Amino acid sequence: MKHILSNKRKIFNDPVYGFITIPNELIFDLIENPYFQRLRRIKQLGLTHLVYTGAIHTRFQHAMGAMHLMMQAVETLNAKNYQITEEEENALYIAILLHDIGHGPFSHALENSIVHHITHEDLSEIFMNKLNETFNGKLSIAIDIFNNTYSKKFLHQLVSSQLDMDRLDYLMRDSYFTGVSEGVIGYDRIIKMLSVVNDELVIESKGIYSIEKFIISRRLMYWQVYLHKTVIAAEILLVKILKKAKELAQTGDILFATPALKVFLYNKFSKKDFYDDINTLNAFAELDDNDIFASIKAWTYHEDIILSKLCKNLVNRNLFKIELQNQPFPIEKINNLKKIIQKNMAININDIDYFFFEGTITNSAYDFGKDHINILFSNGELIDISEASDQLNTAVLCKSVTKHYICYPKNIENLTS
Amino acid sequence: MKHILSNKRKIFNDPVYGFITIPNELIFDLIENPYFQRLRRIKQLGLTHLVYTGAIHTRFQHAMGAMHLMMQAVETLNAKNYQITEEEENALYIAILLHDIGHGPFSHALENSIVHHITHEDLSEIFMNKLNETFNGKLSIAIDIFNNTYSKKFLHQLVSSQLDMDRLDYLMRDSYFTGVSEGVIGYDRIIKMLSVVNDELVIESKGIYSIEKFIISRRLMYWQVYLHKTVIAAEILLVKILKKAKELAQTGDILFATPALKVFLYNKFSKKDFYDDINTLNAFAELDDNDIFASIKAWTYHEDIILSKLCKNLVNRNLFKIELQNQPFPIEKINNLKKIIQKNMAININDIDYFFFEGTITNSAYDFGKDHINILFSNGELIDISEASDQLNTAVLCKSVTKHYICYPKNIENLTS
Amino acid sequence: MKHILSNKRKIFNDPVYGFITIPNELIFDLIENPYFQRLRRIKQLGLTHLVYTGAIHTRFQHAMGAMHLMMQAVETLNAKNYQITEEEENALYIAILLHDIGHGPFSHALENSIVHHITHEDLSEIFMNKLNETFNGKLSIAIDIFNNTYSKKFLHQLVSSQLDMDRLDYLMRDSYFTGVSEGVIGYDRIIKMLSVVNDELVIESKGIYSIEKFIISRRLMYWQVYLHKTVIAAEILLVKILKKAKELAQTGDILFATPALKVFLYNKFSKKDFYDDINTLNAFAELDDNDIFASIKAWTYHEDIILSKLCKNLVNRNLFKIELQNQPFPIEKINNLKKIIQKNMAININDIDYFFFEGTITNSAYDFGKDHINILFSNGELIDISEASDQLNTAVLCKSVTKHYICYPKNIENLTS
Amino acid sequence: MKHILSNKRKIFNDPVYGFITIPNELIFDLIENPYFQRLRRIKQLGLTHLVYTGAIHTRFQHAMGAMHLMMQAVETLNAKNYQITEEEENALYIAILLHDIGHGPFSHALENSIVHHITHEDLSEIFMNKLNETFNGKLSIAIDIFNNTYSKKFLHQLVSSQLDMDRLDYLMRDSYFTGVSEGVIGYDRIIKMLSVVNDELVIESKGIYSIEKFIISRRLMYWQVYLHKTVIAAEILLVKILKKAKELAQTGDILFATPALKVFLYNKFSKKDFYDDINTLNAFAELDDNDIFASIKAWTYHEDIILSKLCKNLVNRNLFKIELQNQPFPIEKINNLKKIIQKNMAININDIDYFFFEGTITNSAYDFGKDHINILFSNGELIDISEASDQLNTAVLCKSVTKHYICYPKNIENLTS
Repeated sequence: MKHILSNKRKIFNDPVYGFITIPNELIFDLIENPYFQRLRRIKQLGLTHLVYTGAIHTRFQHAMGAMHLMMQAVETLNAKNYQITEEEENALYIAILLHDIGHGPFSHALENSIVHHITHEDLSEIFMNKLNETFNGKLSIAIDIFNNTYSKKFLHQLVSSQLDMDRLDYLMRDSYFTGVSEGVIGYDRIIKMLSVVNDELVIESKGIYSIEKFIISRRLMYWQVYLHKTVIAAEILLVKILKKAKELAQTGDILFATPALKVFLYNKFSKKDFYDDINTLNAFAELDDNDIFASIKAWTYHEDIILSKLCKNLVNRNLFKIELQNQPFPIEKINNLKKIIQKNMAININDIDYFFFEGTITNSAYDFGKDHINILFSNGELIDISEASDQLNTAVLCKSVTKHYICYPKNIENLTS
Repeated sequence: MKHILSNKRKIFNDPVYGFITIPNELIFDLIENPYFQRLRRIKQLGLTHLVYTGAIHTRFQHAMGAMHLMMQAVETLNAKNYQITEEEENALYIAILLHDIGHGPFSHALENSIVHHITHEDLSEIFMNKLNETFNGKLSIAIDIFNNTYSKKFLHQLVSSQLDMDRLDYLMRDSYFTGVSEGVIGYDRIIKMLSVVNDELVIESKGIYSIEKFIISRRLMYWQVYLHKTVIAAEILLVKILKKAKELAQTGDILFATPALKVFLYNKFSKKDFYDDINTLNAFAELDDNDIFASIKAWTYHEDIILSKLCKNLVNRNLFKIELQNQPFPIEKINNLKKIIQKNMAININDIDYFFFEGTITNSAYDFGKDHINILFSNGELIDISEASDQLNTAVLCKSVTKHYICYPKNIENLTS
Repeated sequence: MKHILSNKRKIFNDPVYGFITIPNELIFDLIENPYFQRLRRIKQLGLTHLVYTGAIHTRFQHAMGAMHLMMQAVETLNAKNYQITEEEENALYIAILLHDIGHGPFSHALENSIVHHITHEDLSEIFMNKLNETFNGKLSIAIDIFNNTYSKKFLHQLVSSQLDMDRLDYLMRDSYFTGVSEGVIGYDRIIKMLSVVNDELVIESKGIYSIEKFIISRRLMYWQVYLHKTVIAAEILLVKILKKAKELAQTGDILFATPALKVFLYNKFSKKDFYDDINTLNAFAELDDNDIFASIKAWTYHEDIILSKLCKNLVNRNLFKIELQNQPFPIEKINNLKKIIQKNMAININDIDYFFFEGTITNSAYDFGKDHINILFSNGELIDISEASDQLNTAVLCKSVTKHYICYPKNIENLTS
Repeated sequence: MKHILSNKRKIFNDPVYGFITIPNELIFDLIENPYFQRLRRIKQLGLTHLVYTGAIHTRFQHAMGAMHLMMQAVETLNAKNYQITEEEENALYIAILLHDIGHGPFSHALENSIVHHITHEDLSEIFMNKLNETFNGKLSIAIDIFNNTYSKKFLHQLVSSQLDMDRLDYLMRDSYFTGVSEGVIGYDRIIKMLSVVNDELVIESKGIYSIEKFIISRRLMYWQVYLHKTVIAAEILLVKILKKAKELAQTGDILFATPALKVFLYNKFSKKDFYDDINTLNAFAELDDNDIFASIKAWTYHEDIILSKLCKNLVNRNLFKIELQNQPFPIEKINNLKKIIQKNMAININDIDYFFFEGTITNSAYDFGKDHINILFSNGELIDISEASDQLNTAVLCKSVTKHYICYPKNIENLTS
């Protein structure tokens, strides 16, 4: 006797949540699309794995995880009678799945080295529009939600806001793969406490401690992982390498590069090119982490001594020393260091910027002030978390912390003391 | 008032165990060596991430984890007065750290496509000998232990046996990154139950259930992860791609390849070459996952239609259909399928092997019979686990399971029915 | 502006699954009922916490957890179109919630010491019928499902079978609280693989390895936890204490006891009493772990030297030595031990059974043979797990393992050697 | 051939850390002592399990866990050459193991209902002195460390300070058993970052984020778990029950009670009694959770209607409604509620305090200001965490939060609206 299986829903294994169920065939087909599959080859946290060796998870995994949380959020809100239609539900899954599709390899580091004047958000939108053509307009509502042009504003907030599924997943996932337990949050409690008031996503007051923990976790993850000083040293090195390689390419030097990277080394595309010419987008879609690293490994043998030196440093993880402090560094210290480097490494004064980097990092981009998290009390009152919380206060939450760094080869350091 | 920190031991973050402490400077220097750093760019489980998306962990992480477990094993055995000298302890850490250093990219799949007639174990030994020169003979005892030529045999068993730290770490780590909870083992209990009798590693009887679980977990991980049929389909595809590329290269065709891969596409090295010429070893040490994948992505545009088709299939995860069964497939079915493929894909009969693969997989390589796990009872008796256990029996344990597979493009399948 | 919260569903915190949502008000009211609340005071694993100190979780928690898994199972089956009506769904939740409500304190140990000739299954049914009266017949379908008199047989299997939610929860929960990682199972995968064929619960073939792991985990948990020899020694001690106390009570001795326990020390109820007289049931419902242990603590000062000695042993965890082996113990050894005990402890020969226990334990109650787990292959075939699996075979699965034990005071042991 | 096992160190299973190894026989004998074994019957978090059902872990488990962390701390500090002698090491284990031995059942609630004018810290010291006699002075250094009269002050800080092993274990353990992930801390990283400067425990600067997280986690656990309003409502109920029972006992009423509890219902002991008379201490040592709960269950049938009513409320978890707010409640509201209660429940005006409770809770006992956590920077500077941290500031850290509550029967509440 035989019974043919039917209605089997596709399931993905995920170490963070156990299983991720694909809600329907359209979503499955989007996942199968090469534009999305390429995210399998782009690490979520760039070079962070040079410090946290487990952090080699991909943007593909994150997108899937965020969609999984969206399914839970929709279930919670529907159970509380905030009617989300089937069409809107589907659009939410598409929007969150594709919210980061515009990322290229190491994009936090390379957004201004490989492409210029175009952000990954712009690129996400271009990819979505292109996919909308391919899928005969089935992504239209998703795009409206993503762009916040859809009538129900709280749907956009599920995709992009202080409380979106993007943040919940990346904190959970980055904690899991880095092993930094400080980032673990009560994501399930937060989702269960979601509610909607006046078309705005809010948190029921029982969830207030989970929200406090979530805000603190995020800040700690910034300083402990995302802005870890060694990671920054590695990323600056990567930026400098690409800068030097482009410089050489543009002056006619012949560099080895994978075909996908060669396009971007020898051409400069404007934002308009991406919008107008599908070939530009497709060229970008060919790029992934492999192209960058395979090319850099080849450049360790390039005759340009600066390029080869920088590449060797990165490939063999012989990273630069980085100093980080709250105050700017004294100009005399900087000048003195530059002099020693120049003399010691026998380089031209114009090239000093390849071996001495200075700058600032700040977590102000993560502005706790701009976009409120409102807490819903059982008497119906809505109060901003910064007032509702006994632990947190606005002053601390909104404080943007800026740190100054200088970064230079390790052996130099010894010469100075 | 100032106090300079001293005696700080280097610590690595690891999501599986929390922290891994580097025991001393020699070990630290070995980890910093480019031969070892390259393991950061070689995935432990090759293409398994195409099925278990989290399985992108590297051989670097595994080597570090196995060393971490070795530190616990040494601590346990020393507390039980099985004297391990400081020299031997250090040699154990080196031996386990380097036990897999001979692996190249996707080596289970490519061991016969990129190099020939030389195993990764041979290569590990060659790398170790080379490092021993660099480190002025400080690896000699480690090499003896690795080769099982050292007087105390149980030290070798900690590095390579049914109970070695290699197996304990890879089961834990592969479970963690795939999310397959079936592989989780009581590694800490197993280590705490280690003992030595007559220069042989044994398990105290209180640990018997943990050993049973360990054996079962390993078998389940084989079928559920390591020999997952979709993973096999992907790996065969990879083998065929390299085979075709080498064929084209050897017939004079010009193929894009990263410099590191080019050496192996256009040359054929004997085992002797590796032993005699350091350049051969160094060329091999340049290779990693990036070279393979960056080259395959380029070949999706190659004019050879077979090569480009196979590459597109892999890159876009449009994997072949695989059928797996206990019995061989009927020859008529095979011939019929081949005919349909040939006709449908308009390929030459000689090329059919690029689109139709058949073969067998077996877990017999993991021979539970050959190398005993002895259980030490409180009366001093030693009994083999297969007799000591009520759950397991030799017949089942030693049974080598062989499965037959056929593998072919997905669209073909529909044509046949 | 005020918004009153509505549709809030009650949520319980659970360390194993995170949160457990109560599906509706009827279920909530059942949980609030004193018959159910008493399960908060009855440990799931009796005296196991004397070995695994964390194992102090309660029957309340297990019942809630099993209901939580049932909600997932219903969701999975509904998604696969095995229509479960809302009424049936609700009945499933009630049936699993109440499946163990008939358990008294330390019931595995005390089922024949406190009550006689009535099982906890009988008692569960009596409780359910009583609650059905209180809730105006709303439990009728649940009782039919529990008794397997409901038309759809697979619903009963979700409550009680080789694959029921009871087993899945207790393995997960007992692992969590004992810390024995060997018991962790892929419960979520098993549930996602559930299907129904011919009114029978089956597992889709993709879940085969999870089922193998589940079967092995359960066997290992039996030997490592449920039948741990020290736990058995403690439970026999408890049985002997109650036996002695009842004996003293029945011969007119005045014993301290909590009111709830006094009823059962000084009366003997037949099965009929429970069915006919609600007072008997209510008296039973007053009993929990506190009564047993508070009384035993008082008896450590009782003038009967046997009773006080046994109680002191239990309270101060001075447990008896237990020997466990596959063969029966030689009669000479037993007689010799008895003689030494009698002489050494200056006890009457009739009382030797309070200080020397012998018997057998077996896991045959957990009969893998009787109730099949069928695997559903993608071609529609159904095959029993014992045939479908390469790892397991019927012979091993069905083998009932019996072990012999003897148990006696620790200090005696030294005298013998 | 036989080999007798030797040097086997006793191992405890622990779900939080896996295994806990007992360092030596003296420690093992202390654990076996009845004074310590009684902690197996005293829940760490009192009635918290009425809200977080998993929170039934015991003071025994916590003491063992804190000792386990102490072993890790000693290992870390020794590796950094802060010489801790073997004698001191052992004393640390004893001190942390016994730091809470003075706790009675539900002691946060009952410290002023069962005993009076004597704290659990006093009792811990009395128990330790008594044990010191039993163990022939082997606890002397431990007692000095516990009382902070030992020369090396940092040893006391490991036992009792803002950074002690007590806090690290209870946060980890309470999180594990409640399932409140917000309490999970990076305890292993904190321990690895411990250092000593000028005889003071400090944290190396790399651990700064883990310390921030630890401080925040602790505050959140206070509000989310330890001071959860429903837990408070339950604990006040318990206090009132004991108050009423004592009142009845002292006016000559005959109450059922377990022998251990009876002593404390019918007598009033001074602090001096505990110091002077070992029988008082031993009477106290007989008490555990079972006595309290078994007696309360019996009192549900007591003829005093107030006592029986309160007891039924607790036993069946029909807890009082509690309102919690930052401002005091208006006196009119309070008077009005009292009037309704008195009328509705037909009670005497003198008894109103048994059905209407008011008071405040505050977390000021956990004073982040008083006892500094100093951060050690790599240049040798020591900076207080409140200054070293960008996230936390002294104002927030030291702010003592006080909340006002009123608490009354649930049905009353409906009558008022």
